[in-house]
Amino acid sequence: MPELRKDPITGRWVIISSDRGKRPTDYGRAPVTASDKGFCPFCYGNEGKTPPEILAYRPEGGPNTPGWTVRVVPNKFPALGIEGELARQGEGVYDRMNGIGAHEVIIETPDHHLSLAALPTKNIEDVLWAFRDRMLDLKKDPRFRYILVFKNHGEQAGASLEHSHSQLIALPIVPRSILEQASGAKQYFDYKERCIYCDIIHQELESKVRVVAENEDFVTLSPYAPRFPFETWIYPKRHEAFFEHSSPRNFENLAKAIKALLTRSDQVLDCPAYNLVIQSAPLRGAHVESFHWHIEFMPRLTRIAGFEWGTGFYINPTPPEEATRYLREVPVEDPVTA
Amino acid sequence: MPELRKDPITGRWVIISSDRGKRPTDYGRAPVTASDKGFCPFCYGNEGKTPPEILAYRPEGGPNTPGWTVRVVPNKFPALGIEGELARQGEGVYDRMNGIGAHEVIIETPDHHLSLAALPTKNIEDVLWAFRDRMLDLKKDPRFRYILVFKNHGEQAGASLEHSHSQLIALPIVPRSILEQASGAKQYFDYKERCIYCDIIHQELESKVRVVAENEDFVTLSPYAPRFPFETWIYPKRHEAFFEHSSPRNFENLAKAIKALLTRSDQVLDCPAYNLVIQSAPLRGAHVESFHWHIEFMPRLTRIAGFEWGTGFYINPTPPEEATRYLREVPVEDPVTA
Repeated sequence: MPELRKDPITGRWVIISSDRGKRPTDYGRAPVTASDKGFCPFCYGNEGKTPPEILAYRPEGGPNTPGWTVRVVPNKFPALGIEGELARQGEGVYDRMNGIGAHEVIIETPDHHLSLAALPTKNIEDVLWAFRDRMLDLKKDPRFRYILVFKNHGEQAGASLEHSHSQLIALPIVPRSILEQASGAKQYFDYKERCIYCDIIHQELESKVRVVAENEDFVTLSPYAPRFPFETWIYPKRHEAFFEHSSPRNFENLAKAIKALLTRSDQVLDCPAYNLVIQSAPLRGAHVESFHWHIEFMPRLTRIAGFEWGTGFYINPTPPEEATRYLREVPVEDPVTA
Repeated sequence: MPELRKDPITGRWVIISSDRGKRPTDYGRAPVTASDKGFCPFCYGNEGKTPPEILAYRPEGGPNTPGWTVRVVPNKFPALGIEGELARQGEGVYDRMNGIGAHEVIIETPDHHLSLAALPTKNIEDVLWAFRDRMLDLKKDPRFRYILVFKNHGEQAGASLEHSHSQLIALPIVPRSILEQASGAKQYFDYKERCIYCDIIHQELESKVRVVAENEDFVTLSPYAPRFPFETWIYPKRHEAFFEHSSPRNFENLAKAIKALLTRSDQVLDCPAYNLVIQSAPLRGAHVESFHWHIEFMPRLTRIAGFEWGTGFYINPTPPEEATRYLREVPVEDPVTA
């Protein structure tokens, strides 16, 4: 008998096919690998081929020259434009506004052939610092209400360049799925005076069945009602609403948790394409007590089809408890699990 | 300057890249075609290879034999099980219930090589009658709260069998995206005592810029804030909440509207993979005045990536006004446009 499960924060239901759980090898796909073909604007020596950098960690040397470890540049084909006024306007029943926002690319390493999973923990930590620095800077702009950091790895996940990078988009509105999450969490807080994410973490750490790994500061777990097979979330154990205000000592352990999760996923799922997003609280508004930032990791193993588009309801053929077992079994070089 | 547009019913924002609108040929993909390889359980003579039929339109001959024009069978690998009690249960902060539901397949034609677009209008009308018959039957089951009819065409759209078919899933809950739509429409109705969809249709028919085609009973238009390039909706012009209670004379004109839209899309986009869903009102509850059923057609031209998963926000590189122009220009054999 399949099972219907509800995400306690957003109220999203998913169908979990618990009878005929799909194993990792049932999802046939080609592994994501870096080739050597063609010119890459993210490699050393090609700094002039991107828009001028906004930020770089570079022990020595001038801007837009080699020698950096992490480099942030505006997206050459931005989804939103940085200049201008917001200018909201009606059009009969419709609403629109200027597409104001920031769209930046975080180049995670100068090495064309290293995936984020393969980077040394210290480099991953630098990437996290770059996210934080950019978020804190963009947060000062009063036009912005939300900043999303996300990573598309592999063509199946929407990456158009294979050189390892993440992206950041600052938006003049709070997007719907964040609003839903924030308002679900707020409702719970108003009722119980507790953070729902903290309650979830507590319950998961007690039951252990969906805990993939944990270290001093972070817990990596399969959510109870995952949309996608092998979807995995990383939560800070202590309550924090904003990624960008996370305690600096967290970043080392977060880098370790990310590296371990990507290593596990690469081994169990044969280097899948994936999306990874940071879910942090909206920039303005009263979310400090009720929102709890976290990372959502979604390997791209299945196709989203008519049923999902028509309902917002997902069919997940691998129960999260099984996904947890597979991921947990992988020996990681820098073990973060207990 | 890109533009942010808001869907007036759900409140979903999208980014429309109005400057550098992508033309149809900018979306490189292989066209969807039917091959001949292998065994097909949906072809004449293989009726025994599907679960026994639930419904068939067959001028003569017994059940589960050839001679049918449209045939409905249970999905061999159902996402939900038809037998059992709903049995809601809590698990700490979590909620779950048995995966009760119906999952059926509507085989649209015995001809393996015909796509829905290529079927004669009369056959498409029969497919619509089959949807209606099954919905009316399943609606009697008090366990069900929503029925979604959907079609996945082409592998990119999630179709696992190429023989033309649609699917139907009856659910014990109202899915989130329908709830959002229904509650947005209800709010508008409570405030204005008018159906928001009727207002949209009225505004669109006045301005014409997003109207692809219309006939006596239906209007085909590009929504103001489409998630996907070339997303197109078909609305009944007269207010109706339920597809399955639509006036029978509508089905002929709906079949014409669908055939014309698919023909236009095949020509402009070179036979794209697509998803098509019927959005009808929830089975129970007070939606008769405020909900307005319609069809959403979504060609699969772009990949959904981290930004969309992290925000529920879509980036659409083709403004709907441009998509309308391309689709409108196609001469259709059975013209339904004015």
